[in-house]
Amino acid sequence: MGEQVSEFDEGSAVTARDGEPGTYDAALGDGWRIGGGVNGGMLLSIAGRALAAELGAADGDRPAHPHPLAISAYYLTPGAPGPATVRTSVLRRGRAVSNGQASLLQDDGAGGEVERIRVLASYGDLATMDGEATTTATPPDLPPPDRCLSTEQAPPSFLKAASLLERLDLRLDPATTGWAMGKPSGNGVIRGWLRMVDGREPDPLLLLLAVDALPPVAFELGLPGWAPTLELTAHVRARPAPGWLRVNLTSRTMSGGYLEEDAEVWDSEGRLVALSRQLARAATPRR
Amino acid sequence: MGEQVSEFDEGSAVTARDGEPGTYDAALGDGWRIGGGVNGGMLLSIAGRALAAELGAADGDRPAHPHPLAISAYYLTPGAPGPATVRTSVLRRGRAVSNGQASLLQDDGAGGEVERIRVLASYGDLATMDGEATTTATPPDLPPPDRCLSTEQAPPSFLKAASLLERLDLRLDPATTGWAMGKPSGNGVIRGWLRMVDGREPDPLLLLLAVDALPPVAFELGLPGWAPTLELTAHVRARPAPGWLRVNLTSRTMSGGYLEEDAEVWDSEGRLVALSRQLARAATPRR
Repeated sequence: MGEQVSEFDEGSAVTARDGEPGTYDAALGDGWRIGGGVNGGMLLSIAGRALAAELGAADGDRPAHPHPLAISAYYLTPGAPGPATVRTSVLRRGRAVSNGQASLLQDDGAGGEVERIRVLASYGDLATMDGEATTTATPPDLPPPDRCLSTEQAPPSFLKAASLLERLDLRLDPATTGWAMGKPSGNGVIRGWLRMVDGREPDPLLLLLAVDALPPVAFELGLPGWAPTLELTAHVRARPAPGWLRVNLTSRTMSGGYLEEDAEVWDSEGRLVALSRQLARAATPRR
Repeated sequence: MGEQVSEFDEGSAVTARDGEPGTYDAALGDGWRIGGGVNGGMLLSIAGRALAAELGAADGDRPAHPHPLAISAYYLTPGAPGPATVRTSVLRRGRAVSNGQASLLQDDGAGGEVERIRVLASYGDLATMDGEATTTATPPDLPPPDRCLSTEQAPPSFLKAASLLERLDLRLDPATTGWAMGKPSGNGVIRGWLRMVDGREPDPLLLLLAVDALPPVAFELGLPGWAPTLELTAHVRARPAPGWLRVNLTSRTMSGGYLEEDAEVWDSEGRLVALSRQLARAATPRR
């Protein structure tokens, strides 16, 4: 038996395809479903890993840029468990930042391909960046993990629609889980602790999953559907320390049937390590 | 003399190129400079207009999608005054939303092209969208425009580096202009009133300029350089009413030499009409 590969690294793995530079084979795992498709953060992680493979090695006098500083995904069609192809292109190689584009595609069942997400990104090297950080933001004030609600306590029907949750050790602040008891607060906040069940420690790539791994903040607004994402942009601001992440989701405005969901991710040392915002379609309330 | 075209509409005009579907000619105007290049919001407006031309007409049973709901630009190289080409491609035409991609390019001076920005977007029709809106956000509390600081009061050296400001009637809250007097508050907030000098009323496209038209919030953090943008994503949430816009810029976190700048744009009827976030490189403080 070789070394155990973590569930996240296995689920987001990409393999360079022989003879097709910039093209990678991947697989969308059945264990990363949520609602009607494969989790959007996981799709982003797969595309992000392919871009890291393209930009993460030095090229002549251009340094290696292994980490996503900013990455945007536009969700075109829902991903389904099964094989996938990632096609990348390098837009620019710079001294401090390089840019790439990626498309994640699957077989359309009729001999063609259908695109799931299109991605643009700026990559850099967080290890070489100025360590100085200042922020006026404060980490979410959470009860300790053992005083929070674990996904193990979620109803089986909920877990069945979200196989993703079996891979996450997610502890939600009870003050933000009214939706689970049919009593959403309407506050537009969900926050909690997050780590991987198998102990895989966070790194910049895992943060692309973390920003989209909690239940949609729309739940706490009384919108119980899965709120499909149109667009998600994440900024990775620092390399996370090992241990629990804290994730704070907020939404302030619903208009035209859409809402934004902002995520902040904090590491175990109290640093703000990622920010994201997505635009999601608000599902119609159940009648 | 024909009807007067507004400065914004002239500056962001695109013309379909004969025989090259999806390709548009444009010009980056000398009157839209800021810092070392052409304003990033203006580049986004030009790309956004080309995408509106592609997606804004009905296609068979697919309805017209003339408005950017979400649009992301990755800034590759600074735009320079002069001719430009916009190449677009349609990624998906849907019932509620369509997706497009655009590249804005200029001559590289050596017989080739250099890309300025790469853009992804989701377009829809704000006129047909659910009019219901709820928000917990509040419009910025600003003194009336005639009690704010006008750009006419800015030093000539400042205006010279920002020809853009001659086209904007910008009135900044004096509480957020310490930077102009060499005394930045460090609060990371700049807010003000915005309208076009020539009376051009706001619409969804103009909001793409509005989110990037104020002085960089980095100024009020004591970073007087022009803070080049790596990435900017804007969400247009509603069609703005005629009249003044209010723009609120905030930045909370600087790390690794980068800061985020969040913009909220409110219309004259007190509606939150656009949200944006950009990742910008923090310039080194003057010594």
